[in-house]
Amino acid sequence: MTISRSPAAPLLPELIKKFRAIVGAKYALTDPADIEPYLTEERNLFHGRSPLVLRPGSTAEVAAICELASEHRIALVPQGGNTGLVGGQTPHIGEVVVSLRRLDKIREVDTASNTMTCEAGVVLQVAQQKAAEVDRLFPLSLGAEGSCTIGGNLSTNAGGTAALAYGVAREMALGLEVVLADGRVFNVLSKLKKDNTGYNLHNLFIGAEGTLGIITAATLKLFPKPRAMETAFVGLKSPAEALKLLTIAQGEAGGTLTSFEILSEIAVDFSISHGIDVRDPLQEKHPWYVLLELSSPRDDARATLEAILTRAMEEEIIDDAVIAANLTQRAGFWKLRDEISSAQKPEGGSIKHDISVPVAAVPAFIAEADAEVIKLIPGARPVPFGHLGDGNLHYNVSQPVGADAADFLARWHDINAVVFEIVLRMGGSISAEHGIGALKRAELPDVKDKTAIELMRQVKAMLDPLGIMNPGKVL
Amino acid sequence: MTISRSPAAPLLPELIKKFRAIVGAKYALTDPADIEPYLTEERNLFHGRSPLVLRPGSTAEVAAICELASEHRIALVPQGGNTGLVGGQTPHIGEVVVSLRRLDKIREVDTASNTMTCEAGVVLQVAQQKAAEVDRLFPLSLGAEGSCTIGGNLSTNAGGTAALAYGVAREMALGLEVVLADGRVFNVLSKLKKDNTGYNLHNLFIGAEGTLGIITAATLKLFPKPRAMETAFVGLKSPAEALKLLTIAQGEAGGTLTSFEILSEIAVDFSISHGIDVRDPLQEKHPWYVLLELSSPRDDARATLEAILTRAMEEEIIDDAVIAANLTQRAGFWKLRDEISSAQKPEGGSIKHDISVPVAAVPAFIAEADAEVIKLIPGARPVPFGHLGDGNLHYNVSQPVGADAADFLARWHDINAVVFEIVLRMGGSISAEHGIGALKRAELPDVKDKTAIELMRQVKAMLDPLGIMNPGKVL
Repeated sequence: MTISRSPAAPLLPELIKKFRAIVGAKYALTDPADIEPYLTEERNLFHGRSPLVLRPGSTAEVAAICELASEHRIALVPQGGNTGLVGGQTPHIGEVVVSLRRLDKIREVDTASNTMTCEAGVVLQVAQQKAAEVDRLFPLSLGAEGSCTIGGNLSTNAGGTAALAYGVAREMALGLEVVLADGRVFNVLSKLKKDNTGYNLHNLFIGAEGTLGIITAATLKLFPKPRAMETAFVGLKSPAEALKLLTIAQGEAGGTLTSFEILSEIAVDFSISHGIDVRDPLQEKHPWYVLLELSSPRDDARATLEAILTRAMEEEIIDDAVIAANLTQRAGFWKLRDEISSAQKPEGGSIKHDISVPVAAVPAFIAEADAEVIKLIPGARPVPFGHLGDGNLHYNVSQPVGADAADFLARWHDINAVVFEIVLRMGGSISAEHGIGALKRAELPDVKDKTAIELMRQVKAMLDPLGIMNPGKVL
Repeated sequence: MTISRSPAAPLLPELIKKFRAIVGAKYALTDPADIEPYLTEERNLFHGRSPLVLRPGSTAEVAAICELASEHRIALVPQGGNTGLVGGQTPHIGEVVVSLRRLDKIREVDTASNTMTCEAGVVLQVAQQKAAEVDRLFPLSLGAEGSCTIGGNLSTNAGGTAALAYGVAREMALGLEVVLADGRVFNVLSKLKKDNTGYNLHNLFIGAEGTLGIITAATLKLFPKPRAMETAFVGLKSPAEALKLLTIAQGEAGGTLTSFEILSEIAVDFSISHGIDVRDPLQEKHPWYVLLELSSPRDDARATLEAILTRAMEEEIIDDAVIAANLTQRAGFWKLRDEISSAQKPEGGSIKHDISVPVAAVPAFIAEADAEVIKLIPGARPVPFGHLGDGNLHYNVSQPVGADAADFLARWHDINAVVFEIVLRMGGSISAEHGIGALKRAELPDVKDKTAIELMRQVKAMLDPLGIMNPGKVL
């Protein structure tokens, strides 16, 4: 994908020298081989270019970088674990990359207040492990957790599989430390669950994808560690039945229902066919599947799960179900789910959507989107799966069998258009958890409330009047 | 309390006529007797004045009011149930009051998506009842729930007794409809739990106390209705022991621990002495008490509560405990808690604080604040109580026995000063749930991050360049 904007002005050697002086020679990368890993991304949709990657080691260094960049109107791209899926972390026009990975201290863990203050570069998995060490849960969980960072998670307002019970990344942050474009440090790190002293500003930076400032640290909520987890894999006839199961499960399990994933038959087929060591947990095939998980501080999760499944069986909502007998089996259920994206690769080109609609609208969305996509490209194979409990589907479409992948992928925007039309008509979002970045920037003005776009532009102009913070992303 | 600002310019008759034309003659109040109820407030700290109260019946009418007000630079004060405690809803200098109470429609309830879309004037209790009718819970709960409104709850980011498990009002709003100062309607009413399309703007208006725009509707989260509630009243030695009990209760009950209130002996004494039909649930006196409640979708709450209390007994954290045997007894426990504020009245003047500190710091805060307050005014009687689970205390101070109430109340700011110094040193907030309004406006610049204040001023200038939205509040 090509990003057509004017390239950033070349960096003069004396300016590189000034930036280098801030972080130290070792942490100012100018060698193309050193820079390369910061330019590529997972899906190979984007490849950036940059004359300079800075790896600051403190908030003060980040502030000095922003101040210098402001003075000379140098565009910056903040980057965490470089796992984003919409090109938000990529320097498309030769911007300076500011990698936050060296800000990797966990500044404080407070088990009485149930908070943890992490710097932006802390890897999500490290934060999870630190919480577990003190008998707490940091619930944010997603595919890239081994390499994505807390700063990136907050800048993109990451979702993942635990959002149903614990919310998205935004809801896990009590406070932030942010370096603004001009180098001022906005410090509202706070352990407070209730604080009504003035406007809520920190939420502006969460999900802003680095276009309003650079998040350097956050105070995160911790939760009691669940003692019991119970996981079931269920076969059923339709998304409408899955929705009925969701309502029963929420009624019986309340906040202990921590995951509720829907999987289409083709998604399960792909995962079993192409995933390594993926097995079908059920005896027979079903048109749809649900993976649901309960996490409870008490030892009652098994009884609750059985009550849910029994009631759903009696009401003929589900056709078959298996409860994981042990952790290995549980891991097997999740592997089947987690391998779906990569299992699409051997099936050829895949056009991806990360959409959400009101939970009640999911069945109608799938029916309408399937029909429209197949009408547009006969033989195209929709592979819907995702977080039904959040109304969030990864509505991916695999190419027709035997078609040319490039020809199919050339229809990316055509497919997007029909899918997004349905999403918007149903009051949904064209980016549920991945963000806008560079990928969906062109679509944003068409899908968003007009006044919202006006206000976004005002906020951008207010916080980044020179336009140096991750230009060409979001707006 | 006197608010010293220049009075608003007198409203010319032709302008009153124009405003009247928007809402209809019946809903444009100019008779002082009709206006009076909009000028007084619960604590009698403030008494406002206004030439005109407008009672619009639709979002379009609110928009027309704002447009006209912008055109003529007329200051507006939005008002919901008029139950605020910081003078935020009072027209101090002759502003036009915009009462939202006629916007009282529940536009939609969606039990599959677990959302409810309410207009601003819906009374909180009505929203709670509507949720209950469809077998759901709308968990926001506070003393004024019989008369406060959803719009006011969101504008002040209300807290209350259920915030421990369900969060404050902010966390219950998925989306908003807001009329901006210039009359534009910002519509991000949304049922989506995940939506990463651009900046998070609606949180700016939540907790802004009507200074950035007028909230006219909101899409709220609903939760499964708990099947079982179990409530205990516990006697123990100190806030430190209460904190240990909290950690045990959270570990055992997780998200089903829905309330955890701490009460000092004097608070309980006042409530028993002066409250109507308030009885001591325990046989003997204790220096401190905790009221804790579990709400579970399953019938396991009793067993969990017993497990918590047994463990706390064994570890010698608590000295006595009683579990409510029925709903009447449960109501009795809560009455004891809810009567504390009014039970202070017969004890003379009371200087109030609505503060929060990190949960871990609550014991140290109480010890230091008690010592400093008594040093400042010998004989003064601190009456701490509140939401320990949120680190939020209503740290009220009753006058010395036999002192002159007016003399004591004249020390309001002196007492505030010593209490706030401790709060700030501990990383706390001088307004945990009541807001800033007019009451704490002067203190705000001293207690807030300097950059935060700068950004707040920029946001205010951006959204309300003419300064007509609730002037003299917050900033």
